[in-house]
Amino acid sequence: MSWLDDVKWDANGLVPAIAQEVGSNDVLMMAFMNRAALERTAELGEAVYWSRSRQRLWHKGEESGHVQKVRELRLDCDNDVVLLRVEQTGHGHGQASIACHTGRHSCFFQRLDGNAWAVVDPVLKDPERIYR
Amino acid sequence: MSWLDDVKWDANGLVPAIAQEVGSNDVLMMAFMNRAALERTAELGEAVYWSRSRQRLWHKGEESGHVQKVRELRLDCDNDVVLLRVEQTGHGHGQASIACHTGRHSCFFQRLDGNAWAVVDPVLKDPERIYR
Repeated sequence: MSWLDDVKWDANGLVPAIAQEVGSNDVLMMAFMNRAALERTAELGEAVYWSRSRQRLWHKGEESGHVQKVRELRLDCDNDVVLLRVEQTGHGHGQASIACHTGRHSCFFQRLDGNAWAVVDPVLKDPERIYR
Repeated sequence: MSWLDDVKWDANGLVPAIAQEVGSNDVLMMAFMNRAALERTAELGEAVYWSRSRQRLWHKGEESGHVQKVRELRLDCDNDVVLLRVEQTGHGHGQASIACHTGRHSCFFQRLDGNAWAVVDPVLKDPERIYR
């Protein structure tokens, strides 16, 4: 038995994985992991997700350089959601980190204002300068 | 068109919904919402999820009294994950809030230590005293 067997994978063999920044406690993103992704994340100490669109392992930061160093792995009470406590790298010292492919700190930059989603967080770096 | 139409519901008509505590920024839990749950959450100002096990709307706190007052609703860059910024009620002033049905502050109380998940957060209130 492995700690990986304790995880309740869904019908597609996946679990949601939430990345939270150590220090700020900000929620940066949510993606999915399969067993191989979670195993690799633990081995590497950096977040590796399962890309559903590309159907392959996705080492976060492989293109952007914005890797997530994993300081802690957590599992919820139902054993079906993983929480990664990460150090989000990639934007120089003293600046807010960038987790989102849009160049923003967090992927959750849209807020419900009345009856519409409003973009409320700034782009910290032009994506064309991130993915070159 | 409604703001609910902007959300990309999965094949089962659901999106993951992460509850994060305002103030501490702690991640409390993750559950799922269907369209009716998200609409009701916005109307009520309290978190309403879709219970996959019970196949019905689940007003968080309906049994425990530990409701989540929603201060902000956020949507991620892919429009397929919701983040709720909540005030978690239910444990008296000055005490840590309780979101988990086990009587713990957060559902993410298991931490990977070496090759095993270890329970690292305390039970704040006996579940038998919560659900009576």
